[in-house]
Amino acid sequence: MRSSIYRLSVEFGDCDPANIVFYPNFYRWFDAATHHLLNEAGFGWEQLRARYGAVGMPLMETGAQYKRPACCGDRLEIESSVVECARKSLRLQHLVRRDGELLVDGFEIRILGATHPEDAKRLKMLEIPEELRKALM
Amino acid sequence: MRSSIYRLSVEFGDCDPANIVFYPNFYRWFDAATHHLLNEAGFGWEQLRARYGAVGMPLMETGAQYKRPACCGDRLEIESSVVECARKSLRLQHLVRRDGELLVDGFEIRILGATHPEDAKRLKMLEIPEELRKALM
Amino acid sequence: MRSSIYRLSVEFGDCDPANIVFYPNFYRWFDAATHHLLNEAGFGWEQLRARYGAVGMPLMETGAQYKRPACCGDRLEIESSVVECARKSLRLQHLVRRDGELLVDGFEIRILGATHPEDAKRLKMLEIPEELRKALM
Amino acid sequence: MRSSIYRLSVEFGDCDPANIVFYPNFYRWFDAATHHLLNEAGFGWEQLRARYGAVGMPLMETGAQYKRPACCGDRLEIESSVVECARKSLRLQHLVRRDGELLVDGFEIRILGATHPEDAKRLKMLEIPEELRKALM
Repeated sequence: MRSSIYRLSVEFGDCDPANIVFYPNFYRWFDAATHHLLNEAGFGWEQLRARYGAVGMPLMETGAQYKRPACCGDRLEIESSVVECARKSLRLQHLVRRDGELLVDGFEIRILGATHPEDAKRLKMLEIPEELRKALM
Repeated sequence: MRSSIYRLSVEFGDCDPANIVFYPNFYRWFDAATHHLLNEAGFGWEQLRARYGAVGMPLMETGAQYKRPACCGDRLEIESSVVECARKSLRLQHLVRRDGELLVDGFEIRILGATHPEDAKRLKMLEIPEELRKALM
Repeated sequence: MRSSIYRLSVEFGDCDPANIVFYPNFYRWFDAATHHLLNEAGFGWEQLRARYGAVGMPLMETGAQYKRPACCGDRLEIESSVVECARKSLRLQHLVRRDGELLVDGFEIRILGATHPEDAKRLKMLEIPEELRKALM
Repeated sequence: MRSSIYRLSVEFGDCDPANIVFYPNFYRWFDAATHHLLNEAGFGWEQLRARYGAVGMPLMETGAQYKRPACCGDRLEIESSVVECARKSLRLQHLVRRDGELLVDGFEIRILGATHPEDAKRLKMLEIPEELRKALM
């Protein structure tokens, strides 16, 4: 099970008038954390496009539970892990911590997607190639 | 069950190099849709603060299933409904459609939150006042 | 001189802990306003790509003067105009108003850009085609 | 003249369908870079609020010249400097570089702002206190 750590500082502009992180930013960071994990595995966006004609790893489902708010200036650590790798999709867990304390517990279910040959507005799911599966498990 | 419609156009800057909506933007729109619903119910952010000392309605959990991608120029309609109103939390459903076709099925579970009296970095849950419950159901 | 009006509501998530619009959002709206103006002129992003092989109209320079802050719930109107159209660049002015009162006075200088044939990380400036110039003046 | 360096990686979600950084993100990074510089000088947002009753350092003007595009995966360095400190405003320069090559040359003119005593929707300019001026020059 591949995992990686993504670190960030919460900026003023990431926070809303309630003075805490505007929650969609956690998903922005999940996405960045996934790209970092894929890059570390040798399967960045460019590689996925070049090798499999994929437009990336689009999302089937995402979710998050918020335990404690994060504030401006906080240094966060996101531990991302591939916790499941099915034939056509994979599930990533993202645990956001501040000084070891869990703030957010999130996930993403992603596919390997290519443009649909008959309809440019849809996506086609590709099977997860064996080498990609191996690199991620 | 209160519901409302929030309309938007997908802008160039909402899309990523795969030429589809960068998914955290859907949550940004969910949040805007919730504020519109609360405003329509007469309980906007300013009212929540003035009447209950709340810092807003922070999130306990969010999630979304992505059925079809949305592209630059698409006109989207988000139908938001309060589908559950418990003693201290409420659940909103957000259905994103393009020309009647469902693209994303999302939800938010929110509380009425105030700054914790003993720790400014935490939030305290308030009970949902009866008048707010009535306005939302 | 072509001009167009782009309307928007300031959302909670557009504002920062100072309870006013986080200023980069004004540039996000300038970009959206420019795309709307180009679409109205019949030269949306897809058309620019299909007709001229352009990757869009990237920026050479942008700027803005902030007269008054905008707040959550404000309804804004952006009046965008092509105020100059040189051989290889054009200048757009963006005036942001709330109830007729000017809040922000901004501009963008854009080129018609294609991927540089010798270096994918650079852009090549194309001449503004006569039909595009006519549509914008 | 105080200056500081802010480092960042360009994420997938920072880029647009043209596969380059969506330009408002540069201003988001300028803002983060300014907060880092102010923090290093001992005058972060919390300090400005506590000492002077300021709501922050809102913008009077911003601008940027784009020399070369930045792409997904690029590691950028922003060198920020206080280049001018007038009685009621200061000017910051932000130079964005990739491997030493200048990509963007930007600036911000900021004031020390408090809520206007007679109109909550306006801001009042405070004089830059001597200790703040000293810390920034």
